[in-house]
Amino acid sequence: MSRSGVITLTTDFGAADPYAGMMKGVILSIFPAARIVDLSHEIPAHDPAAAAWVLLDSVPFFPPGTVHLAVVDPGVGSKRRPLALRNGDRFFVGPDNGIFSAFLPADETVELNRPQFFLPKISACFHGRDLFAPVAARLAAGSALADFGSPLADPVRLRLPQPVQEGDTLRGEVIRVDRFGNLITNIPERLLPPSPFAARIGGTDVPGLFPCYAAIPAGTCAALLGSSGRLEIARPQGSAAAALAAAAGATVAILKRI
Amino acid sequence: MSRSGVITLTTDFGAADPYAGMMKGVILSIFPAARIVDLSHEIPAHDPAAAAWVLLDSVPFFPPGTVHLAVVDPGVGSKRRPLALRNGDRFFVGPDNGIFSAFLPADETVELNRPQFFLPKISACFHGRDLFAPVAARLAAGSALADFGSPLADPVRLRLPQPVQEGDTLRGEVIRVDRFGNLITNIPERLLPPSPFAARIGGTDVPGLFPCYAAIPAGTCAALLGSSGRLEIARPQGSAAAALAAAAGATVAILKRI
Amino acid sequence: MSRSGVITLTTDFGAADPYAGMMKGVILSIFPAARIVDLSHEIPAHDPAAAAWVLLDSVPFFPPGTVHLAVVDPGVGSKRRPLALRNGDRFFVGPDNGIFSAFLPADETVELNRPQFFLPKISACFHGRDLFAPVAARLAAGSALADFGSPLADPVRLRLPQPVQEGDTLRGEVIRVDRFGNLITNIPERLLPPSPFAARIGGTDVPGLFPCYAAIPAGTCAALLGSSGRLEIARPQGSAAAALAAAAGATVAILKRI
Repeated sequence: MSRSGVITLTTDFGAADPYAGMMKGVILSIFPAARIVDLSHEIPAHDPAAAAWVLLDSVPFFPPGTVHLAVVDPGVGSKRRPLALRNGDRFFVGPDNGIFSAFLPADETVELNRPQFFLPKISACFHGRDLFAPVAARLAAGSALADFGSPLADPVRLRLPQPVQEGDTLRGEVIRVDRFGNLITNIPERLLPPSPFAARIGGTDVPGLFPCYAAIPAGTCAALLGSSGRLEIARPQGSAAAALAAAAGATVAILKRI
Repeated sequence: MSRSGVITLTTDFGAADPYAGMMKGVILSIFPAARIVDLSHEIPAHDPAAAAWVLLDSVPFFPPGTVHLAVVDPGVGSKRRPLALRNGDRFFVGPDNGIFSAFLPADETVELNRPQFFLPKISACFHGRDLFAPVAARLAAGSALADFGSPLADPVRLRLPQPVQEGDTLRGEVIRVDRFGNLITNIPERLLPPSPFAARIGGTDVPGLFPCYAAIPAGTCAALLGSSGRLEIARPQGSAAAALAAAAGATVAILKRI
Repeated sequence: MSRSGVITLTTDFGAADPYAGMMKGVILSIFPAARIVDLSHEIPAHDPAAAAWVLLDSVPFFPPGTVHLAVVDPGVGSKRRPLALRNGDRFFVGPDNGIFSAFLPADETVELNRPQFFLPKISACFHGRDLFAPVAARLAAGSALADFGSPLADPVRLRLPQPVQEGDTLRGEVIRVDRFGNLITNIPERLLPPSPFAARIGGTDVPGLFPCYAAIPAGTCAALLGSSGRLEIARPQGSAAAALAAAAGATVAILKRI
C-alpha cells in the first residue's frame, strides 16, 4: 500500500493555542517531506462524533495513501486505547473512541502499544503530540501498519445517527451547521422522495429540492443537495440556522407531498 | 509563463468547516508538489469585493507564476460563469463575479467550460472543490491557461470604491477593519496632501501623518500610511474602530489644513 | 549549523486578515522549499510575553535548525531594533522587545541592520512582511546568522513570571487559558510538593495531582501535570476558567497539606 505523503489533522484544539503547531513540529521532525493539511481544529470540544462526520465528508477528496490523524480525545491518558487503522487505501491514527466510526469495520486495525515509536516522554494530556503524531509521521513515511502494534479486534464504534423511514415520512437530523448557517443533514440523496417535497424543521416546512443557493428566493429557506451529497437547508445570503432557530441535532422530517 | 508551484486560497468558508481542507485534498491529489498558502478564509460571507481588496494587497508579495484561487461565490451552481485569468505573471481561478476586479482587464481570460478538467461529479454547492481546485492544481502544475476553456471577453468587473477629490477635500472610505481595530482606507499615498492634515471620520478629526503606531500618543487615534500603502487610522494598543465607532464603508474626508 | 527548512510563525495578526499569508508569500518568493508552520496567530494583541510562553512550550518539538519567526510588535517602525538570534540549534527572528526572552541569553544575537536582505520597500507598519520574513527565509535557506547584522549585546529581556516559595506555600500564576478552559500555570513539576496537595485559586482549593483529565470527577476542577510539564487546572469536559472565574494572571498557591 503506497503512501501519498499527505497527513490531515482534525482536532478540537482551536486555532489560538499552539497545540496543532506542536504536532506539526513532531511530524516534520520525523518525516520532513510530510505535507500537512488542516481539516479542522474547531471540532466541538470533546465530540468525536462531530469529527467522524467531518472525516466521512472529507476523506474521499484526499489522495490514496493519505494518513488522517484525528484527535478529539477526552479520555486521553486513561485506559482509552490508542489505535491506527486502514480502510482500503486510507489510513487513520487517533484515540479508540469512535472518531473513525465512519471507516469501521476496517481492513486492518492495530492498538498502538509499541512505545519505541512514540516520543521518549509521553504526557498524560497530549497523546496527539506525543504518541499519535509520531506514529502518523512514520506511517505516512511508509512504515507498515502492523509494525505499530497488535491487532485490535473490537475498536469502539459510535452509531452515527441515520435517517429512518416512518410510514410516509423520512426522519433525519441536522448534523452540522456551517459558517453560512446552512443546516447539513444526515439524509442522503438516494433516500429522498422525488422533488418537490417539504422538509419540516421546528414546525416550519421548507420546500425542496432547489438546484442551487442562488435559485432560492431571497429571504426564504429551502432544501437542496449539499456538497456532501446529503440534504441541506439554506437561506441565500443569510443563515437558515438563525431563521429556523435550528442547531445540530434538530429533527428534519421529509414529507412526500408539499 | 513559468509557474511557482504556489497556490493561494481566499474564501469566505471560515476555519471551522472542512471546506478549505477538502480543496487542498483535491489540489494535492492532482498536483502533489503544490505549496498551498491560506490568504484568508474569513472574507465576509458573500462579499466578492472584500476579497478583491485582499487580493489587491496580497498578490504582489507572492512569487511570479503563483495561482490565486478565490471562492466567494453566492452564485455557485447558477448561470454565473467560472473563469481563469492571467494578469502579467499572476494567475487567478474562481467565479466570474468580480472577485478579481483588481486584476482586470487581464492579459488572458477563459471561461472554464471543459469538464474533463473538473472532478467527475460536480456539486451545485461547491465549485471551489469540484471545479476551481482541480483547474488551479493543473494550472499551477504548468498547464496552459488556454487549455481550460474558451476566451471570455466580458468578465464581470466590480467598481471598487475609489477616493474622489471634491474641492479641497479628498473623500475616501474604510474598506476593511483589521484584528487590531485599524481602519484600512482606500486612499493611496500619492493622493494625500502634504502632512500635517486631518482625516475626518464620523465627526472626529484625527491628525496625520504619523510615522508609525508607536509615535501616536496613547489613547488617541491618528492617521498613518498602512502596510498596503494606503491611509490607515490607528490607535496604539487599542482599537480605532471601537474608539471612532467606525466600520467598513465609513467615509473618511482628508482636510488639507489641520 | 544545519537547517531544517522549517519556519514557524507566531503572531498577533489573527486569522481573518491576510497578513500571515503575505509573510508566507515573501518567504516562498525567497526560499521556495520552505515548509511553514503556524504556531499561533491569535497571541493576545501587543503582548510579547504571551508569545514568549508559546515559544517556550513549542520550540522543543521542532527539528533542530528550525527558524522561529515571531511578530508581536507594538513598537514596529519606532527605534525598537529588529534582531535575529541563535540558541543552540534553534534560530529566532523578530522584534527586540523580549518576545524571545525564554531563549536568552543566546549563543549569537545580531541586530538586523543590513537592508540588502529586506524587501526593497519597508513599511513602517509591517516589518513582519518587509524585514523579518525575508531574513527568516534566507536564514532557513542556510545563510549564516552573522551575515544579517552586527552583534547585539543587550537584547531586551522580559522577566517571565516565575513561581516563588513563601514558607510552606508555592505561589505561581496562570499564564494562559486554552480553548478548553484549562488553566496553564507557570509552576513546573520539579517545584511541586508530593501529591496530594491543594492548588488554591480565587479562594477555591482544587485537589491534585490527578493522572489525567478523565480521572477527574465530573463537575469538579482538579490539578494535573499539563502537556507543558507545568501544573494545569482542568475540569473534565468543561471549563476550569469559567468554573473558577480565573484568567491569565490569576495567582495559584500550592498548599502542601490538602
